[in-house]
Amino acid sequence: MTPVEYPPPLKELVGALKRLPGVGPRSAERIALYLIQAGGRETAARLQQSLRRATEEVRLCEQCGFFSTAALCGICSDPQRDRFVICVVERATDILPLERTGIFRGHYHALGGRLSPLEGVRPEDLRIQELMDRINSAMPTEIVLALSADVEGEATAHYLAEQLRPTNVRITRIAQGLPAGLGLDSADSLTLNRALQGRIAMS
Amino acid sequence: MTPVEYPPPLKELVGALKRLPGVGPRSAERIALYLIQAGGRETAARLQQSLRRATEEVRLCEQCGFFSTAALCGICSDPQRDRFVICVVERATDILPLERTGIFRGHYHALGGRLSPLEGVRPEDLRIQELMDRINSAMPTEIVLALSADVEGEATAHYLAEQLRPTNVRITRIAQGLPAGLGLDSADSLTLNRALQGRIAMS
Repeated sequence: MTPVEYPPPLKELVGALKRLPGVGPRSAERIALYLIQAGGRETAARLQQSLRRATEEVRLCEQCGFFSTAALCGICSDPQRDRFVICVVERATDILPLERTGIFRGHYHALGGRLSPLEGVRPEDLRIQELMDRINSAMPTEIVLALSADVEGEATAHYLAEQLRPTNVRITRIAQGLPAGLGLDSADSLTLNRALQGRIAMS
Repeated sequence: MTPVEYPPPLKELVGALKRLPGVGPRSAERIALYLIQAGGRETAARLQQSLRRATEEVRLCEQCGFFSTAALCGICSDPQRDRFVICVVERATDILPLERTGIFRGHYHALGGRLSPLEGVRPEDLRIQELMDRINSAMPTEIVLALSADVEGEATAHYLAEQLRPTNVRITRIAQGLPAGLGLDSADSLTLNRALQGRIAMS
């Protein structure tokens, strides 16, 4: 007796779904079965279509690296935004969380990662030259570094500060400290260390 | 200043992914961003292709209702399987877990659900007539009911037993009792009740 399995096209679908981040073998099977049965066919069609559209139409903004369907993204092409302040982030996906704060009205620059000797990411692998070129042509007044608060983010920030010094542009860095809503008892000592070092005068 | 969002094709992809079972808004966004970036493009293409193939090629076996790419599934078309024992399950997805036990060598019949007055599922909504027709033409020796061990599964089993009585075929039901690996202290009293009622002589 041959052991019975799902038909090959169904197994392939499970295999493709398993490669999605956060989707394990069990959820992949559950999703695949949902998609090929009556109730999920419409979702399957919609997913197929939106996958095609998204992969064909979405690209990275030539200037800042954010997601866009045109050469310049919605931020870079918005005449109301302040072109003289550029916020440097690691990845394109870091831009939306910053946008959602509603506070920053300048432009962005996604590096495409951060320096990591361990993972073999060197300065030339990041969009650092593009940042220099932008600074030379757009003459911004301030560069805000919004990088991760970990060793590699710190190293990248220090490297950038060093590289940008000759341009004489003002370089700032977002604050590190206690996250909102958290008490001192649940913060680790490195966070408290940085919160103390970054203390601000109240009067 | 216009609030910045992802480009429409990307938002649509997030929307389609959110409709998958077990995928929340956050995972949908994470998966979508993965799929449109360099590292995930190959997975996106594979997913697109396998979605198309699976939805086009996979259908339900005309006889038992299991997934198949042909008119008859791998089980129904296997000459080595015992055609005279038919195991009745609620859904096509119940067949593979039973197959994985490696014990059952007969055929299956998926009802397409179970009786549920609350959800408006009546006998004529299930593949009960098809089961009667199969019994009349294939003359099986035994019908094994493998339905859920809950109120609706029980009601469906009793209804089927009643309907099948005139055919004089032997009707059995899979056992209910203590699940493997579980102690008595973690079993609820209904399970223990059924385990006691279904006790088997050891000598």
